[in-house]
Order: sequence, then structure tokens, then C-alpha cells
Amino acid sequence: MLFFTQCFGAVLDLIHLRFQHYKAKRVFSAAGQLVCVVNPTHSLKYAPTRCAAAQTSTEQGILPPCHHHEAVHDPQLVPCTCPLFSCPWEGHLEVVVSHLRQTHRINILQGAEIVFLATDMHLPAPTDWIIMHSCLGHQFLLILRKQEKYEGHPQFFATMMLIGTPTQADNFTYRLELNRNQRRLKWEATPRSVLECVDSVISDGDCLVLNTSLAQLFSDNGSLAIGIAITTSKVHNAEGEM
Amino acid sequence: MLFFTQCFGAVLDLIHLRFQHYKAKRVFSAAGQLVCVVNPTHSLKYAPTRCAAAQTSTEQGILPPCHHHEAVHDPQLVPCTCPLFSCPWEGHLEVVVSHLRQTHRINILQGAEIVFLATDMHLPAPTDWIIMHSCLGHQFLLILRKQEKYEGHPQFFATMMLIGTPTQADNFTYRLELNRNQRRLKWEATPRSVLECVDSVISDGDCLVLNTSLAQLFSDNGSLAIGIAITTSKVHNAEGEM
Repeated sequence: MLFFTQCFGAVLDLIHLRFQHYKAKRVFSAAGQLVCVVNPTHSLKYAPTRCAAAQTSTEQGILPPCHHHEAVHDPQLVPCTCPLFSCPWEGHLEVVVSHLRQTHRINILQGAEIVFLATDMHLPAPTDWIIMHSCLGHQFLLILRKQEKYEGHPQFFATMMLIGTPTQADNFTYRLELNRNQRRLKWEATPRSVLECVDSVISDGDCLVLNTSLAQLFSDNGSLAIGIAITTSKVHNAEGEM
Repeated sequence: MLFFTQCFGAVLDLIHLRFQHYKAKRVFSAAGQLVCVVNPTHSLKYAPTRCAAAQTSTEQGILPPCHHHEAVHDPQLVPCTCPLFSCPWEGHLEVVVSHLRQTHRINILQGAEIVFLATDMHLPAPTDWIIMHSCLGHQFLLILRKQEKYEGHPQFFATMMLIGTPTQADNFTYRLELNRNQRRLKWEATPRSVLECVDSVISDGDCLVLNTSLAQLFSDNGSLAIGIAITTSKVHNAEGEM
């Protein structure tokens, strides 16, 4: 009986996902973009660790390891949430993609323009939604994070990072776009390298920032659709640099 | 001697304004847009008053009056900062523009696309930067506000309001654009009517929101240039509604 109940639950989940996917496809159908449903990540996240990111090592192509602490007693301290979460793995850039896919089950999508559909936006902070994006011969990581910078006021932070060096990252521009309820918000910037800790990008607020009410305005039934496009920096510089 | 010192100070101010204007013109020269230097408003602002905005009267075309209180003892209470500040004036929509120009010395600019150059971004919150924009046969009010929603963390909120009824406002779309340091942020939405209190728009966060560090990235020498464009909603609906 329990088996049948679980099966029924799984079928319902699949129908729900399919429905969300269909809605997102309808929403973005004009552009013929690939839609990917992204569920929040739960595993290995926000363990009592911190990223000992040595800035000096970032240009050497080695990801800084995340060292374990005994405990985080101060609630002001934000645990390490570099793209490898609290994973103690350490390795060269060339094998980061396979590590992320195999160990952390992060999906990878192909295409210049895709739609990132983050589900369950109502989940309490801190929560991450992560996907890899393969484009222009490189792999990028999109990170959407719900976090309380000010206690009791969760905000959403979205940024894109290149799985490459900061020098390589300078050659690209990424665009994140939200569009719903007669409102449109676009953010364009140069991606950071995964060798830089994502925590600093978010604590600096140098990314797309949404407060909860705005996120709700852009959400549909608890899911937030973010259109993603990546171009080379030459295009960005030519058309937009001021 | 004092007279000459004051004259010299005034000349320096003029040169500084001219320099800022020149810089903004250079920045936006590609689009040939009109640049307006906007200084923060000081007069009549944040007096101990609150806007008794009766929602029922908004469609009747009469601006809600701002009633005086004896004192605001609770720091949680945000004083009335509707487009008429704490001014007790009350009148019909048709005479709002002349009232704003004559009593509050708010400039009015013509053109479909203009650049709003807010100076002295470092001033402590609360501070407002306001301008009127005449376009497509209507007058709009751009309000940039520096405010501390979370104590010790000032943010910038920018929105556009139509000097007209909410029904009239639904016919337009406004766009605010920031572009500097290889970053670009665009916000598009339907303007609200000045009959709705600007405080609620800002407290809901239903506008362009910038944290201090992002505002600094977009600023140049303490001034923030915001590109403004207004279109009729048909264009917006055709190209962007999802």
C-alpha cells in the first residue's frame, strides 16, 4: 500500500514538473528558448564550514578548498557556499564540470539562451538553485540564492560564474531577465570566475538582487523564470559601454 | 570681502554643475539624450507630517491632502513623502504641475528619452531627487529616494508616477536604465498615478531598487545617471508581455 502511495506521489510530482515546464515554455515560447526546471539544492549545503578562499591562488587555476570548522557559533558568519558547497574536494578547473555533474548532480544545459525556472521560491532562506550552462565553448554556473542579509528580510541574489579563470571571464557578458506582470528587470554584467568565492559577490550585492515582494511579482505559482543569455564582451562593449 | 567669497563659491558651484553636465552628456552622447542635473531636494521634506491618502478618492482626480501631526515619536513611522512632500496644498490634477513648478521649484523636461543625473548620492538617508518629465502629451514625475528600510542599510528606490489618474497611467510604460562599469540594469513597468502615495510603492519595493554598493558601482564621482524612456503600453505589451 505504501509502495502505491509513493508511486502516486511520484506521478503527481512528475505531472507538476511537466506543468511548470509547459507554463515556462509558453511564457518564453516567442524566443524558442530551452527551459530547464531547477529544484532547490539540499545536499551538502550550509554545513558548518567556511571557504578559505586564498585570493592569491585564483589565477593558478586551482579551486580553493573548503576547510571544515568545528562549529559556527556566530550567526553573523555566513557558511561557505562556493559552487562546491561544503564539499572538501579540491581540483583543477578542467575537472570541475565532471565533479559538479557526478558528485553534486548539477544539470548542464546547452544553448546561447536558456530559461532557468527555479521552483519552490517559498522555501526558507538560505536556499540555492544551481545549474550549469554550456555556451560559446565554455561552461558557466548560474547561482540563485535566497539569503537573509538583513535578519527577517530574505532576498534573492542571482549571478553567473565562469568555470574558468578571471581573465577568461572578462571575455563574456551575461544577461539575466525577469519579465512578468507588466514589469521587466534586466541585469547585464561580466561573469565572475568560480575561482572567486560566490559569497563575496553576493555580500557585495554585485549581482541581480530581488526583495521578496518583487520576487513574488515575477513568480508564477511559486516558480521564478529567469531568462539567461551569454555573449562575448565585444558585443557588450560596442553597444552599451558608457 | 564676504560678498566676493560668496561670489567665488557660486562660480565654483556653477563650474562643478557644468562639469557634471558635460560628463553626463559625454556618457549619453550616443543616444543624443537631454541630460538634466538634479540636486537633492531639501525644502519642506520629512517634516513631521503624514499623508492621509484616502484610497477611495484616488479616482476622483483630487490629490489627497497631507495633514499635519503634532509630532512623530515612533521612528518606525515614515513621514508623508507623496510628491507634494509635507505641503498642505490640496487641488485638482490639472493644477498639480503648476503647483510643483511654482511652489516646489521642480524642473520640467521635454522629450521621449532624457537622462536624470542625481548629484550628491552620498547624502544621508532620507533624501529625495525629483524631476518632472513631459512626454506623449502627459507629465510624469521621477522620484529617486535614498531610504533606510533596514536600519543602517540605506537603499535607493526609483519610480515614475503619472500626473494623472491610475486609468491613464495604465496606458504607459516607463524604463529606467543604469549603465556603467560593465554593468547594466534596466527596470520597466507601468507608472503609478500621483494619486497613489509614493510611500507604498517604495515600501512594497515595486520599483527599481539599488543597494549602496551597487549604486556606487553605477555612480560617477557621487552622481548617478539614470536614462529614462516612456512609451505607450501597446509597444510594451506587444514586445514583452509573457
